[in-house]
Formats: sequence, structure tokens, C-alpha cells
Amino acid sequence: MKAEIIAVGTELLLGQILNTNAQYLSQELAGMGINVYYQTVVGDNMQRLQHAIEHAAQRADILLLTGGIGPTQDDLTKDALAAVLGRSLHIDRPAMDQVEKFFVNRGISMTENNRRQALVIDGSTPLPNETGLAVGIAIAQDEKFYIVLPGPPKEMKPMFDGQAKPWLLQHALTNEMPIYSKMLKFAGIGESLLEDKLLDLIQAQSDPTIAPYAKEGEVSVRISTKAGSELEAMKKLEALEAQIQKRLPKHMYANTDVPIENMIVNIMADRGLTLSAAESCTGGLLMESITAVPGSSAMFQGGIVCYSNQMKERLLHVPHALLEGEDAPGAVSHEVAEVLAEQVRNITDSDFGLSVTGVAGPAYSERKPVGLVYIGLAERGKKTEVFELRLSGNRETIRIRSVKTLLHHLWLRLITHEADSASV
Amino acid sequence: MKAEIIAVGTELLLGQILNTNAQYLSQELAGMGINVYYQTVVGDNMQRLQHAIEHAAQRADILLLTGGIGPTQDDLTKDALAAVLGRSLHIDRPAMDQVEKFFVNRGISMTENNRRQALVIDGSTPLPNETGLAVGIAIAQDEKFYIVLPGPPKEMKPMFDGQAKPWLLQHALTNEMPIYSKMLKFAGIGESLLEDKLLDLIQAQSDPTIAPYAKEGEVSVRISTKAGSELEAMKKLEALEAQIQKRLPKHMYANTDVPIENMIVNIMADRGLTLSAAESCTGGLLMESITAVPGSSAMFQGGIVCYSNQMKERLLHVPHALLEGEDAPGAVSHEVAEVLAEQVRNITDSDFGLSVTGVAGPAYSERKPVGLVYIGLAERGKKTEVFELRLSGNRETIRIRSVKTLLHHLWLRLITHEADSASV
Repeated sequence: MKAEIIAVGTELLLGQILNTNAQYLSQELAGMGINVYYQTVVGDNMQRLQHAIEHAAQRADILLLTGGIGPTQDDLTKDALAAVLGRSLHIDRPAMDQVEKFFVNRGISMTENNRRQALVIDGSTPLPNETGLAVGIAIAQDEKFYIVLPGPPKEMKPMFDGQAKPWLLQHALTNEMPIYSKMLKFAGIGESLLEDKLLDLIQAQSDPTIAPYAKEGEVSVRISTKAGSELEAMKKLEALEAQIQKRLPKHMYANTDVPIENMIVNIMADRGLTLSAAESCTGGLLMESITAVPGSSAMFQGGIVCYSNQMKERLLHVPHALLEGEDAPGAVSHEVAEVLAEQVRNITDSDFGLSVTGVAGPAYSERKPVGLVYIGLAERGKKTEVFELRLSGNRETIRIRSVKTLLHHLWLRLITHEADSASV
Repeated sequence: MKAEIIAVGTELLLGQILNTNAQYLSQELAGMGINVYYQTVVGDNMQRLQHAIEHAAQRADILLLTGGIGPTQDDLTKDALAAVLGRSLHIDRPAMDQVEKFFVNRGISMTENNRRQALVIDGSTPLPNETGLAVGIAIAQDEKFYIVLPGPPKEMKPMFDGQAKPWLLQHALTNEMPIYSKMLKFAGIGESLLEDKLLDLIQAQSDPTIAPYAKEGEVSVRISTKAGSELEAMKKLEALEAQIQKRLPKHMYANTDVPIENMIVNIMADRGLTLSAAESCTGGLLMESITAVPGSSAMFQGGIVCYSNQMKERLLHVPHALLEGEDAPGAVSHEVAEVLAEQVRNITDSDFGLSVTGVAGPAYSERKPVGLVYIGLAERGKKTEVFELRLSGNRETIRIRSVKTLLHHLWLRLITHEADSASV
């Protein structure tokens, strides 16, 4: 099976946004054993859009279109595909209900053009949109398979995973041997060091295959194999997983594609442990990452963003002498990170208290370099640990890496507990 | 002039890397007044690569190829283009010297395949590589213009800026007018309603052109025009901008591509106003957005994430009677949003205090529906405002929309002040 990805949108051709959808879908299709031979980007233009679809249909079996299904005049993807297939469009009732409900709930009157978001091609399978309003489409014609997905990644990814992928597996991939994959997740290690640790395995790879990916602050390894049954596949994958895990026990935190904060939330909720945080340079990013996990309310108490020195004193009782004065260590220091972690733990009466204070840039502060960050980890009845980080990158990268590093240390602490209690 | 960008590399088709080159070149070409109608990605395969070049040459005047010019056997871009143009390749002496010098300097013996990096097409203009080894190519044939650039962005960008761009300006763009664009940003309004308000302008558009598009929680409109001089362009763009601004004065917050939090930080810092926040369901996202703006430390004091009811009582003195009990309004209520905003403003002694409390989901709480959110806005010496929101979407979307809506209300309050003080 050969696939082609067509991303629709003039903003892509103007370079205003990056085509991350093509990367995501390419990874997913590779995982399904489908070869992608071409990716195409075309603008919001009826004639060129039809041309792109017709041309792709000549060289691929599966066409995935993303974007151009919103409410506005220049959202033409469904119209173009309908024209190429010689079919008409109609309003999908459930999708229309969802659109209408959205405006009723918001108490806004719906403009007419929003009806376009509920359009589907005659004879197609509508793909419900769980995170937005525009309905997607799956349709087979002349042994070709067409999928229409929304442009915004927040809508496209869940629709592909939940709707389009199962549809393709059922309709297009009936007599392919399916590919089974596992995503192994790592923290506190860079892509190159990880690759170095696994180099012999990567070079010797044939089946299962090993593919490392790096994202901001975390590294993933996808291991995949073709097999007749899931049982057979899992036997092969788990053997390799065990080998990799054995080499990086302090870094591999999951064998599914979840961020490390999900593991932390689950472990702490299971054990009835509570968490709080005091953030300076990360300004809430740490707490935002943890509370982004559903169920975090079971373990996360709350915390304080003490952006100014005054707030460090007033809300977290950091001694003035530590913050200001001739030979004060200053806000960005080992000492202050320690006080912040311990104070926020005390004030919230939680089992663990985290802290971050540093220079995220772009400007240095206290004559300290951009990228200098101190992270603190306080635990009830244990000695508080503080780590000094010297990070590179821009403001955003430094903030993300600070958070990911602190979460890695907390996770390490938690699994060591596990080991302790297990060994008792 | 029409251009097509062809990025070459199987790693792109596998989704292992993101096609940032296409974005960079698209932005550059738009700035030069060249329309990009298609972007294509093709793998390291001779037949498909030739097919992509031939097809692009039928529909574009300028072809930019990136990638596939390294030393290895699967670097085929130059060979493919030479075949399509019916020309041969030869070693470019200066490029070959550079390659040889590289290995001599490092004391490594050069493998034979490195000679491939110095290959150029007969009759072409070699484009020296200042940051790598593979030489680029510029060549005109049959009124078509072909540019070959390296894949690694750190080699591609300087070669385009320093070599390819001047070559194009001199050979291809003898009588083109550059495009000038402005980005108008809106908050508190959806894409469809915005388009509805501007529909007559959009439908009548010829010059300048108007293109709306939506990102999570915000909407943008790009207005563009071709002109002989920047002055002339700005006159046309500013006239249209004024028209649009007049129709949506409460929603258009910027005429450059910045998030609304940047405007808030600038306005407040200029006027010496300070801000604090108390967050429940958004868990730090609001404070994170504000502190992501460089210079926010001038106006942002800090705040509290009061995730549990206990923290609402302990850290923000919310009366127990409001939170729990038979006929208590509960944590997700108008009353609690009001107390949170006022208390955090008092505790931090800042001019403005913001609050968010709601049900982000996936599970409902207090028998209240997912998406019900209350946002509070307290100001020194003014009556506190509370707004009830009924949002749809998943946990992440609800959190983002809560924050964007609250920021829009704060911005509105700030510009109204401006109006007041101006009218005084």
C-alpha cells in the first residue's frame, strides 16, 4: 500500500505555519506498514486542490488530506474531493447537531457559514470531531481510499487515531500483515547519548526495528514488528524492550507514549502521596504540566508562582538576607531553591515540595548567566535535594528543560521508594 | 512568477524530521513576491525524484530543491536534475579544494564518495557552501530556473540568503514587485463570526488581499499587497487595517503577529501596573502564558495555584461555607471566582487580580458540567467582574480558552482605561 499526504492551506505555502501534520501522519503510516512516497502542500485554491488530488490518486492507493474543512469561504477541501470523485455533499445530522449545540452552549448566534463544517460526501463515512467542530470524511472509490482530516493538530491527531486509523485498518489494510509498535519513553538523557547506548542494537536491527525520536525535553524510541498475531508480536517486542530497559533503568519511564508527568501522577495517586510546587522562572509551567494530567487533583495540592522577590518573601517566607544585600546568594541560588521547596511543602502540608528558580533569559539577572537554574526537591522527613542546571537554548527551551529535569528527579525518587518498599 | 519547493529525503517521508526548510523558503519567496503554489516532499529514489522535478517544471517557473546532495549513494538530487535537464555533471574545482582541505585539516583520510559533494551540473552556477561541504547549484534552462540547496538548515539558509537569493533576483525576478504583508490579531471572537463581519471586504478583495485563519483561542487576518515601495504598500495596508479595526475595536488587539499576553505585558509595564493571579482548573496555564513574555517580571508579581479546596481556604482565605455544605455554591461558582480574584490581588498588593475556577474535565465535579468556568477580574478601587463561560472541547482546549478569554477581558479593561485617561 502506498499513501500520499496532502496538506491544504495557503498559510503553509506562505511559511506562516510549519507542516507538523505531515510529520505526524508519516510516522503513523510508517507504523502501520504503509509507504509514503510523496507529501504535497497546496493552497486554498479549487483548481490546484483538485489537480493535487487527481495527481496523487494516480500514484497512491491511500490519500490523506488535512486542512481546509473549516467554516470559511476558502475552506475547499471537501468540495474539491467531492468534485474529483463526482459526488455531492450533504449535511451530516449528528455533526450539525454538534455545531448547533456548540453555539447554543456558548450563547452565541451561529453564523450560516458554520453549516459547512457539518458537510460530508455522499456515501462516505463521517469521522466525528471530538475536539473541534468540522466533521472528517473516509471514503473508498475505485480501490482508492480517501481520508479528510482537520488542519489544527489538536483536532487532526485524535480524529486520525480514533477514527481514520481504525477505518483504514478495516477497509484498506485487510490483507497486509499488520505492524505492531511500542513506544518507549525516556527522560534525563539526550538523543545522541541514548543512541550511543543502543548503537549495537540499532545497527543490528532487522526485526523488530528501532527508531529513536527527540522532542523538546524528552526522547522516545519506537520498536516495531510485523506479525501474524498480537501475541506473537508482543513476545518479540517485550524481549527487546527488556533489553533496552536493562541498559537505561534510570531513564526509561514508560512503554507507552505518555509524558513523565502522567507516570508521576499515577504513582503518587496510587500511594496517596501529595505534591506542591513553588515556581519562579518557570512561572507556572511546572504546575501546568502536572495539572494537565486528568486525575492530578488526587495528588496535586497547589502551589505558588513567586515571580518577584517580594513574593518570595511574602508568600514563601524566604529570608530577605538571602535575596538582597552585598553578599546575599540572591534569588537564583542553591539556598533559595532549598527554602522554596521546603516552605511550599510546609505551607501546603504535602508530602513533596518542588521548586525552580533561575535565569530563563533573554536578559541575565543578578549578574548570573542565562540558563543557570536551581531546582529543589523537598520530601517530608527527608533531606532536601537541590540541583544546579546550566541549560542552553531560548527562554522557552530553558523553561521546558528545567521542568522536565525536575520531573525526572521526582520520578527517580518515587521509583527508588518503590524499590525500597519492595526490598523490605 | 510561480515557484515550487521540492524537499528530498526519505527521513521526511518517515516523519523522522520536520520539513522546516519548506517553511523558511516559503517565507523568503513570499517576501520576494514569488507565489509558491505547491510544496513537495519526495524520497531518495531516482525515478520518483525525476518524476517530481518533471511534474514541478510543468507548473512552476522556479524550482527549489533541498537535500540529497551529500556524499552517500542515496544522495541523488544532482543526478536526477542533470538527467531531467539532459546535462552531465562535473567536479567543481573550488568546491573540491574545500572538501579536500576539510579532511586535511582534520587529519582524516577522505573517502572517495566525498568527491560527490563537489559535483555541479554542466553550465550551471556553483553555489559555494560556507557552513558545510556540499556545493549548491543554480541553473536556467527553457525559461525555468532551478536551485539546488543542501538539506541541513544550517547549510541551506546561508546558501539561500548569500548565493541563491541574489542569483534569483538577478536572473529570474528582473521585473517583479515584492509582496508586503501585515498580520492583524483578534481575541474574543471566533473565525466564522470574524469572517462574517468582514465578509463584504473579503469577497470584494483584490488588492490588498485578506486571509483569515484560526489558531487555538485566537484568530488572525493577513492583509497583503504588491507594491513598488514599502511606503506605497504601507499606505494601502494601513487604510484597510483602519477599516477592519473600526469594525472590531473590541477584538483587534495587534497589527503584528503576537499573542494578546504580549500586549498586556507591554501596556501594564508602560503604565507601571502590576498583576497577580489565582488559578484552579487552569493549574498555572494563565501565569505560564504571561511569564512566557520576556519582560513580564516588570508587571507580574506572582500568584497561587489553588487546586484543592483546602488550598483555596488556606492560601486564599475562601470561606469554608462557600466551598462545602448543603447549599454552598461550591468551588466552581461566581462567588468563589470573585473571592479568589480579590484575595490574590490583596495578598500580593497588585493593581489587578485574575482568577479562574471551573470544570476542565474529563470528569465533572460538584455535579457541574465539563466546560463550566468562572473567570474573575479584580482591580484596585473598582468593582470586581466575574464572567461565566460554557466551553466545549477537551481538557486542554477548555483550559486554553478559559485563559484566552480572561486575557481578552483584561486587555479590554486596559484599553478602556487608555480611552478614559485620553478623554480626560
